[in-house]
Amino acid sequence: MRIIGIDPGYAIVGYGVVDYGGNRFSTVEYGAVTTQAGTDFPLRLQEIYAGVEEILRRTGPQAMAVEQLFFTNNKTTGIAVAEARGVILLAASRQGIPVFEYTPVQVKQAVVGYGRAVKSQVQEMTKRLLGLPRIPKPDDTADALAIAICHAHCGGSDLSRRIRQGSI
Amino acid sequence: MRIIGIDPGYAIVGYGVVDYGGNRFSTVEYGAVTTQAGTDFPLRLQEIYAGVEEILRRTGPQAMAVEQLFFTNNKTTGIAVAEARGVILLAASRQGIPVFEYTPVQVKQAVVGYGRAVKSQVQEMTKRLLGLPRIPKPDDTADALAIAICHAHCGGSDLSRRIRQGSI
Repeated sequence: MRIIGIDPGYAIVGYGVVDYGGNRFSTVEYGAVTTQAGTDFPLRLQEIYAGVEEILRRTGPQAMAVEQLFFTNNKTTGIAVAEARGVILLAASRQGIPVFEYTPVQVKQAVVGYGRAVKSQVQEMTKRLLGLPRIPKPDDTADALAIAICHAHCGGSDLSRRIRQGSI
Repeated sequence: MRIIGIDPGYAIVGYGVVDYGGNRFSTVEYGAVTTQAGTDFPLRLQEIYAGVEEILRRTGPQAMAVEQLFFTNNKTTGIAVAEARGVILLAASRQGIPVFEYTPVQVKQAVVGYGRAVKSQVQEMTKRLLGLPRIPKPDDTADALAIAICHAHCGGSDLSRRIRQGSI
């Protein structure tokens, strides 16, 4: 199964595409869609949409996995991230790709086996599981790959939650 | 100038299109794009995008005005509303329509002349200014028309704020 993991944002959208089967991973590609600070916000949304749409079309994943959003300190940034996330979900939906979401704890649990793991542990395990020469940069890309691994391990189980109305 | 006002949401997106010139309004059309509870959320985003895109294409506004989002009590609903708003901004941006945002106080000030006006006062003034036979339903539609009036009155002034990166 081919999975794309996405770490949503409006300045950097990390993504990672992996194939998973027979308990083995193979990495298809990873990177980030970036937008320039100072650009009008609706134009940034347009760039994010076009970038994600192109990646989906080129790599053809069967599922998208994204981290669940929570609003904590910076509410203003949170709104802009949610707006970008909406555009990303739209890109998946228009190509008929189902979207699944996971909490940060679920991702840590699935990748490291420990829900309170720190970021460096998650990144190190992501690198090992995917057989990468080094930890991908930026962090958003490493996070996106970890989310894809999470879906590979959890998909189809009770932990996996397809995004529905009630779940957001 | 033709303006579309939008009241974002994921169940109901209110909209109102007005022409404004020489201090007079004429109402082009108003209504709501609605999505069904229980439908997968990414599909609802797709319906919102398609609905708004079609209205923009049909009515050809030169500006979109939306209310600024704030997160207060219900954070979970807030995220879904912001995701829907992102999709609406995308539809405007892809058609080259500039988007302006206003706070609720600005809308009340512009429509009623008093920033602490209550909802019924805003609705009554919206009806009068547009010469409508009755207050439009649902409330989201009336709110959208009020936002369009706000932009007609404030557009081009210092109160008007085009959405940019720093403003969200």
